[in-house]
Amino acid sequence: MTIESLKPFLTPRSVAILGASQDPNKVGGRPLHYLQRYGFKGPVYPINPGRPEVQGLKSYKSLDDLPEVPELAVCVVAGDQAVTAVEDAARVGVKGLICITSGFGETSDPEGAVKQKRMVDAARAAGMRMVGPNTQGLANFANGCVASFSTMFTTLKCMDGPIAVVSQSGAMSSIPIGLLAEKGLGVRYSLATGNDADVSVLEMACAAAADPDMKLLLLYLEGMPHADKLADLAEIAHKNNVMVVALKSGRTAAGARAAASHTGALANEDRVVDAALKRVGIWRAPNIAGLVSAAEVYLKGWKPKGRRFVTISGSGATGVMSADHATEAGLEVVSFPPDTRKKLDQILPSFASAANPIDLTAALLTNNSLLGQILPVIADADAADLFKVDMPVAGPGYDMPGFAADIAGFSKATGRPVVVAGWQGDIPGTFRAAGVPVFPLEAEAIAALAQLVAHHELVDRAKARPRPHWQPFDAAATAKREVALNEAESLSTLARAGLPVVPHHLCRSAAEAATAWRNLGGPVAVKGCSADLPHKSEYGLVKLGLDDEDRISEAYREMEQAVAKAGARFDGVIVARMVKGRREMLIGAHRDPFFGPVIAVGEGGKYVEAMPDVALLLPPFSTDDVLAALDGLRCAAVLKGVRGEPPMDTAAFADAAVRVADLMLRDPGIASLDMNPVMIGDAGRGVALVDAVVMRYED
Amino acid sequence: MTIESLKPFLTPRSVAILGASQDPNKVGGRPLHYLQRYGFKGPVYPINPGRPEVQGLKSYKSLDDLPEVPELAVCVVAGDQAVTAVEDAARVGVKGLICITSGFGETSDPEGAVKQKRMVDAARAAGMRMVGPNTQGLANFANGCVASFSTMFTTLKCMDGPIAVVSQSGAMSSIPIGLLAEKGLGVRYSLATGNDADVSVLEMACAAAADPDMKLLLLYLEGMPHADKLADLAEIAHKNNVMVVALKSGRTAAGARAAASHTGALANEDRVVDAALKRVGIWRAPNIAGLVSAAEVYLKGWKPKGRRFVTISGSGATGVMSADHATEAGLEVVSFPPDTRKKLDQILPSFASAANPIDLTAALLTNNSLLGQILPVIADADAADLFKVDMPVAGPGYDMPGFAADIAGFSKATGRPVVVAGWQGDIPGTFRAAGVPVFPLEAEAIAALAQLVAHHELVDRAKARPRPHWQPFDAAATAKREVALNEAESLSTLARAGLPVVPHHLCRSAAEAATAWRNLGGPVAVKGCSADLPHKSEYGLVKLGLDDEDRISEAYREMEQAVAKAGARFDGVIVARMVKGRREMLIGAHRDPFFGPVIAVGEGGKYVEAMPDVALLLPPFSTDDVLAALDGLRCAAVLKGVRGEPPMDTAAFADAAVRVADLMLRDPGIASLDMNPVMIGDAGRGVALVDAVVMRYED
Repeated sequence: MTIESLKPFLTPRSVAILGASQDPNKVGGRPLHYLQRYGFKGPVYPINPGRPEVQGLKSYKSLDDLPEVPELAVCVVAGDQAVTAVEDAARVGVKGLICITSGFGETSDPEGAVKQKRMVDAARAAGMRMVGPNTQGLANFANGCVASFSTMFTTLKCMDGPIAVVSQSGAMSSIPIGLLAEKGLGVRYSLATGNDADVSVLEMACAAAADPDMKLLLLYLEGMPHADKLADLAEIAHKNNVMVVALKSGRTAAGARAAASHTGALANEDRVVDAALKRVGIWRAPNIAGLVSAAEVYLKGWKPKGRRFVTISGSGATGVMSADHATEAGLEVVSFPPDTRKKLDQILPSFASAANPIDLTAALLTNNSLLGQILPVIADADAADLFKVDMPVAGPGYDMPGFAADIAGFSKATGRPVVVAGWQGDIPGTFRAAGVPVFPLEAEAIAALAQLVAHHELVDRAKARPRPHWQPFDAAATAKREVALNEAESLSTLARAGLPVVPHHLCRSAAEAATAWRNLGGPVAVKGCSADLPHKSEYGLVKLGLDDEDRISEAYREMEQAVAKAGARFDGVIVARMVKGRREMLIGAHRDPFFGPVIAVGEGGKYVEAMPDVALLLPPFSTDDVLAALDGLRCAAVLKGVRGEPPMDTAAFADAAVRVADLMLRDPGIASLDMNPVMIGDAGRGVALVDAVVMRYED
Repeated sequence: MTIESLKPFLTPRSVAILGASQDPNKVGGRPLHYLQRYGFKGPVYPINPGRPEVQGLKSYKSLDDLPEVPELAVCVVAGDQAVTAVEDAARVGVKGLICITSGFGETSDPEGAVKQKRMVDAARAAGMRMVGPNTQGLANFANGCVASFSTMFTTLKCMDGPIAVVSQSGAMSSIPIGLLAEKGLGVRYSLATGNDADVSVLEMACAAAADPDMKLLLLYLEGMPHADKLADLAEIAHKNNVMVVALKSGRTAAGARAAASHTGALANEDRVVDAALKRVGIWRAPNIAGLVSAAEVYLKGWKPKGRRFVTISGSGATGVMSADHATEAGLEVVSFPPDTRKKLDQILPSFASAANPIDLTAALLTNNSLLGQILPVIADADAADLFKVDMPVAGPGYDMPGFAADIAGFSKATGRPVVVAGWQGDIPGTFRAAGVPVFPLEAEAIAALAQLVAHHELVDRAKARPRPHWQPFDAAATAKREVALNEAESLSTLARAGLPVVPHHLCRSAAEAATAWRNLGGPVAVKGCSADLPHKSEYGLVKLGLDDEDRISEAYREMEQAVAKAGARFDGVIVARMVKGRREMLIGAHRDPFFGPVIAVGEGGKYVEAMPDVALLLPPFSTDDVLAALDGLRCAAVLKGVRGEPPMDTAAFADAAVRVADLMLRDPGIASLDMNPVMIGDAGRGVALVDAVVMRYED
């Protein structure tokens, strides 16, 4: 539905330019210039009442004068006239409008927002979709529909290719295209959505991802108010085998401030963005270079079988560094089986090394066929999944075209990824021409391979999970007031959800407390219960290890007094069995305004803010997802058992986390949950919630 | 002394080539070819008994036939003949010999090592220095003395410049030169030391750093057996204002294995390498790109006054990303004072943003003098230390040469670092020509500035410290056997060194133990003492919180029996006051075979291996160094006090760490110390060592 409505932007039959300028270097002249330069085949109608023709095309006075209703209109008229132009376009039945004009929602002037709303209202009433305002425009280099004013497309002759670049920012819709062109890669779509007033960047990304020719989609975002569309995008991309790499800026406080003043983006909690992208199998790039760095390996369509990595180099040093980089990137620098080693030794001269990294020294100079001989030996033995060949120095004597042909042939025959590291002279050109991805330096080549492996793992896991129930941002929801349940009510809520709450009784008298102690048998914890005082220990409302009637009665009376003294409501005293787990963990949950329930799992204790060791998960998720998240924690090894200790009951912990997620999905009245500590015992001994605070929304 | 002896390698008066070949593309022909191509002015003597002349120069039969004794000889004869050639050169009085020939210490053949030793012995007996064997050679592009066979120097026309590249590996002596040439930077020295049989890579680095024209020294190492020379290098470089960046590979197990087979490097403990480089103010690069990435800003000679950072951009998106990257790199994205903001607002058009990042939007297109106007406003207010200008898109309308002149002029007038991010078209060339460092993308520009700031801080701290007492690697020292002291002896050793050991008594009878308890007053820890059983708790040799005579006597008897049962020597029982610190810390010490005493400070407890939070320090160091190290720990905030808790006594902890370092320096008989836990209390309450194991070398 969305995608259908966006087709006029990508493949329009006809285009009108509202306010077309004669000067091809002005914002108002560029779209017309580019439509002609890039060979758009459909009718193009410049609208400029002041001229009989514009840039060689017959000019029209208004939309009403055109011989047909254009499918796409591009609005470049100045200032307030843009509002009228949008209304006109909606009236005559234009299907899609790109409003390049700026000065609306992105300004600090409240009038700008009002005018922008008028445009959106007019468009929506007429069933017209609108991109912008304040957008650099859209380009499709397959059909020449380049309705953009990007300066990049003047200096660069853009080529079509299986990549889409979709961005809120104009600059970031074109910078990646320039960088990819330097690698010889073409891009089909450059889609800048500007103020996202009607069509959002993620909707536009969905439309691009649905193009069956796409293999890679690069996304630049400063805000993410439409989480539902992120789930759509992932679904469409996975179905269409498009890998998605996203650069979401505004990660830091300074960045979020800058984003708010740039695109008016609402700040996302960055750890939630991380978790959300991971949840749906989208790779997060740290910077512009990281957005484009692995493009070549993505386009090969490789799906690596594993992480076993081999480097073949003519330089010992690049081999040593590659072993370091590969290990640090999580690849396995495999040792060859003796058989394979022997076969390699027979091929290699004595001074070369057949260990991994394979150091050919200068042997390639004397025997240009070495590479073609050794690669199949490794593949035949199924001894590695990923290959890198270093060409650190080029010059007379090296048959680069021959090496390129050998590598390309090997990779094609085996389907295994092989990349080259080299930058000198014609190395990049020669290997690219043969279809071999080439990176300037070893670290970059290894990073790209490691990203390919990890991204495919992410996609596979994402595909196996049910779709998240994300909703569009709802400002009203964030304004709801919250109220704390007292500890007894909190524990009851969790117990009803099937969580292993510590055996306890809420007692309303000292006698009841003593009875509770006798029933529980053994030492108990006594805790004053008041919804008004969540930080119990600060008021002396926690006593541990009490094991005789007098001290329990005394504790009851003291706590009753302490609560009264604090002017708080006294809800009784909880008498709970003392539980000694192996380690204090935590499970927390809150509702993100963009992505809904977020579950935190990790180490508990009192320093969780100062020394966090926590992972976030977005439901629905499985116990396997929780176990994988625990594996990424600092305390992972301790949970598994070190120094001869038995493993802890991570299975029970994971089960508890899944139940918390279910509870958050089932009961929208719960604002947040904080369970700290969750005591974890030896494997098979379970976990126990000993303390919890549940916050509910007020009715 | 060292440096004097290496002068013949860098600035020889005359050069002989032993085994010079007629073919300029052969290893044996390249040095002669390059000496002529790069215009070496002194006499060059090819020695090749088979030809009357070589590459146009008169050829000689042997060294004895030359009209003079050459100061430098380059040996390119094949295989074993190299040994004779070296002996001949030593005999006639050559001052320096570069042995390019390979097949010696780097091979697995023990004969190779024997032959290599013969060469070294001959050289040393005659007072001749030797570089290599198995080296790519040395180059000085200032005087044209290019005695190397690097293929790079064929394809690249190398330029002289204030940079030295010094490397064990041949490839890594030339790859950085090619990468720097792409930035328009010249390099004076390319020095590959190969097997380091006589002259080591660090000695060679000292010689290069002593050249008064040098500003930057790039170092590639796979091993670091000469720690003393590392200290020399730092001293010379600091004195001469040369910044040193080192890439030490073999960081991982796989990398160390590869290095051992490449240069025969002995594996260094990588965390110690980190600490050592930091100790002497050398920046550690993570990879090849990181080795050269900041070269342009180093060469400007800037010393930033602080970390306050400003971005000026024509793209909102690069501004947002810059704010993220700068924050993550530890720079401060400053807010301008109202005055400055007001002045900027007066200059900028209304749609631009005068906040930091300053977003000029497309205003630069209409007013090319904006940049030149706003930079001084910020500098005049002293509102920032570091500046970056983004040029994400180039094209018609942008006066790049004008911007470059404005930026260069501003930087020159104020001495403040300004860099540009931009890669398109002639941007790099235009700004470089004006002397403005330029980086392709924002993240790289910011990383370079952050490195410049952090490296200068490192150098300043290094200069303020006394020189470390590092010694050359001594294989014999690593073979010494170690023996554990029992806990009582260990604690005594530490108490004598002025460390705050918990009050305790070593008791040889149950009665003595009871007396000790009475004397100490209050609950005690009782611990069985046996040098044979350092892991006490596994044998039931630790009882805590005992506070009555019977239980103490009983504990004594049980422990005596437990030690006997384990077949170990019973040294008595330690009765110690129970100490409740705020947190369990650790101080450890060991002797690194390369760098001597290494002190570890950090969190204690039983999971120090599984969840390490530890920093390493190399003595001598000050309590300030310890405090700075603690600041980098995960537990830093907790030590300083969070959630209303008072700070802990880091001053006392730092004092203890300094005393441990002094002890390790003073008493070479101590192999290692392990103090875990060191209980730390509130500020002013001190620390207490409650457990310790001292290992001594056997006599």
